[in-house]
Amino acid sequence: MARIVQKFGGTSVGDVERIRNVARKVEAEVRAGHQVAVVVSAMAGETNKLVKFCTEINPIYDAGEYDAVVASGEQVTAGLLAIALQTIGIPARSWQGWQLPMRTDGTHGKARILGVETRDILRSMDSGEVAVVAGFQGMAESGRVTTLGRGGSDTSAVALAAALKADRCDIYTDVDGVYTTDPRIVSKARKLSRITYEEMLELASVGAKVLQTRSVEVAMKHRVRVQVLSSFAKESGSSLPGTLVVDEDENVEQLLVSGIAYSRDEAKITLVQVADRPGVAAGIFGPLADSAINVDMIVQNVSADGKATDLTFTVGKADMERALKLLGAAKAEFGYQRLISDDNVVKVSVIGVGMRSHAGVAQRMFKTLADKGINIQVISTSEIKVSVLIAEEYAELALRALHTAFGLDQA
Amino acid sequence: MARIVQKFGGTSVGDVERIRNVARKVEAEVRAGHQVAVVVSAMAGETNKLVKFCTEINPIYDAGEYDAVVASGEQVTAGLLAIALQTIGIPARSWQGWQLPMRTDGTHGKARILGVETRDILRSMDSGEVAVVAGFQGMAESGRVTTLGRGGSDTSAVALAAALKADRCDIYTDVDGVYTTDPRIVSKARKLSRITYEEMLELASVGAKVLQTRSVEVAMKHRVRVQVLSSFAKESGSSLPGTLVVDEDENVEQLLVSGIAYSRDEAKITLVQVADRPGVAAGIFGPLADSAINVDMIVQNVSADGKATDLTFTVGKADMERALKLLGAAKAEFGYQRLISDDNVVKVSVIGVGMRSHAGVAQRMFKTLADKGINIQVISTSEIKVSVLIAEEYAELALRALHTAFGLDQA
Repeated sequence: MARIVQKFGGTSVGDVERIRNVARKVEAEVRAGHQVAVVVSAMAGETNKLVKFCTEINPIYDAGEYDAVVASGEQVTAGLLAIALQTIGIPARSWQGWQLPMRTDGTHGKARILGVETRDILRSMDSGEVAVVAGFQGMAESGRVTTLGRGGSDTSAVALAAALKADRCDIYTDVDGVYTTDPRIVSKARKLSRITYEEMLELASVGAKVLQTRSVEVAMKHRVRVQVLSSFAKESGSSLPGTLVVDEDENVEQLLVSGIAYSRDEAKITLVQVADRPGVAAGIFGPLADSAINVDMIVQNVSADGKATDLTFTVGKADMERALKLLGAAKAEFGYQRLISDDNVVKVSVIGVGMRSHAGVAQRMFKTLADKGINIQVISTSEIKVSVLIAEEYAELALRALHTAFGLDQA
Repeated sequence: MARIVQKFGGTSVGDVERIRNVARKVEAEVRAGHQVAVVVSAMAGETNKLVKFCTEINPIYDAGEYDAVVASGEQVTAGLLAIALQTIGIPARSWQGWQLPMRTDGTHGKARILGVETRDILRSMDSGEVAVVAGFQGMAESGRVTTLGRGGSDTSAVALAAALKADRCDIYTDVDGVYTTDPRIVSKARKLSRITYEEMLELASVGAKVLQTRSVEVAMKHRVRVQVLSSFAKESGSSLPGTLVVDEDENVEQLLVSGIAYSRDEAKITLVQVADRPGVAAGIFGPLADSAINVDMIVQNVSADGKATDLTFTVGKADMERALKLLGAAKAEFGYQRLISDDNVVKVSVIGVGMRSHAGVAQRMFKTLADKGINIQVISTSEIKVSVLIAEEYAELALRALHTAFGLDQA
């Protein structure tokens, strides 16, 4: 008997019929003798609807109340899946974040998991019940509901798998694995049978929407065996093999670059002629952090005259308006000349653990883009990733060119 | 400074604009110096949508999971109203049933409130925050979410008012008070400025959808001053006067009959030729109670031969199918001959504390109906109420005739 955590995303539980389909996938593992906990997202579209209610009332809503509102979506799905399982003879009960509890910090809207209490859920599972857990949500020390940020159900699942010492964490999604790049754009994209935690982390962080970034961090930290699978694959008991996220020494493929990712969820903001003195950057990014606005790429050049410089950074598209309002309100304080914003941008990233030991990846990337006449607006790099911000209209062209340039095209 | 509980139903919070309108009504009380707790229902239509999901998956759903699913609607409204209040400068926070907690028994789907913990909510209110409480929901001793039955938010509000020792509990609804009968059907219906707890209780229990029955019971027990008001009345700070629910000695009008009510939410079930021996009724109604199906009118005649008799009772329309399934499954056990059901019925009731000291109300009611050629199928009476079940097609005719016969028509 193995202990398995299964996670189903919003598309997989998008309507009653799909919830029944998920129940059958859970049933297959139960009938195989396994102990199963299932983590579910809200039905597709529900979270967006709830977020819209909040922003309609106030674009700068209170994050604590936002959490109370949007966490309701997962709660609904968990209850419905429990009913669907009971209907086919599988004992089951739903668990909300506060009922476990899934303990988080108090960063409403983007809370981090501090720990998962497993006493009650294990007692239920040991008694033969499938545990259906509402993903995306937790409870802060204050007793208030928190949410983990978009895609947070992945993190719920991996954290639960770690806490339950599960043998496997199967993430069911609407794709059947992790690809070298988006197959809807690059027809020659290949599915990877294995990928390292580190590469998956970089892919997730630049918008390959297969797994939420933090879920991969948690998986890496606790060495949770994560498998990405399609919830729509035809099956007779078992699903088609997806992609297994593994330790580097388990990864046999060892490519220089394993994937090209992109994210359209980027907006660029430039503060023109901001004072070049200590504390200014902290003064600017502090209020953004307080409002739970994630800042991604940041570029500040050395100032020519030692007095003022241009500061450019990117935020999520949905956060741009709020960020501009916050910065506009503090204009006097920071003494910048004007604000420029642009959300017609896309971030393209080349990722691979192999690039740690091979120079020249960045150079090959820049040359490939230059050959196609694509201007690079912002660059950022990490140990196993090079990212560039380009005009959105070049997204597909850039992806295809890079996929070919790094030898990823299917034979 | 007074302490006030305000309750807004589903229509009053049906969309974002209406939630803003509710925020302004709360603001008026806060600006007048009062301490306010607000109880809200789910946005109109939401609860029905959630119930439909449950019944689509399984008409005989698990009541505990049903509660987890449907309680989400109130959670959403509470969070949104808190945001709307903050937006107009009123400090506010939302409370879910388990956060107070609102303690209930474990009867999922129709739980009874056992007590309301007020320590945390009072601390918040004393610090100047408006408390926005999700109605309709509570927490059982098991730590699971419970709901109080349709219309349960009224009971949440009254129970909270009792626990907070509130000076007033204002129930905002889509009508502007309690009428002698449904003004949509009887144009001569009058609004009552006062009504006794007892009369309100009977009116509520026969389908005058102004207040949930149990809310009136709780108000009567704890002497909570309940006021029924319209949430759509034009106003400049104060609403148009509604109906105040009071003790009998506060009620000045003292009519023989104060109202004619009706309920279309009735379905009649007859067990033909059921064995006439001890324990049969208990055997029949036990399983219905276990499935949280409320039985209302019950009629069993003395059997002619001492062996078998017909047993007729009514249940809510929505419960009819489940009741028939449960009874059908137990046919061998009860040994009845066959089941007859009919949901084209309506219950019409004449109500008034005055009838305690005046004979002849029942007789006048039966004669009025007979004069119009309306056949009475089932009769039940209480100290201050006479109810009859008639064919649904006669509902309007019966209401108008009785309203006139008991002298309730507007001058």
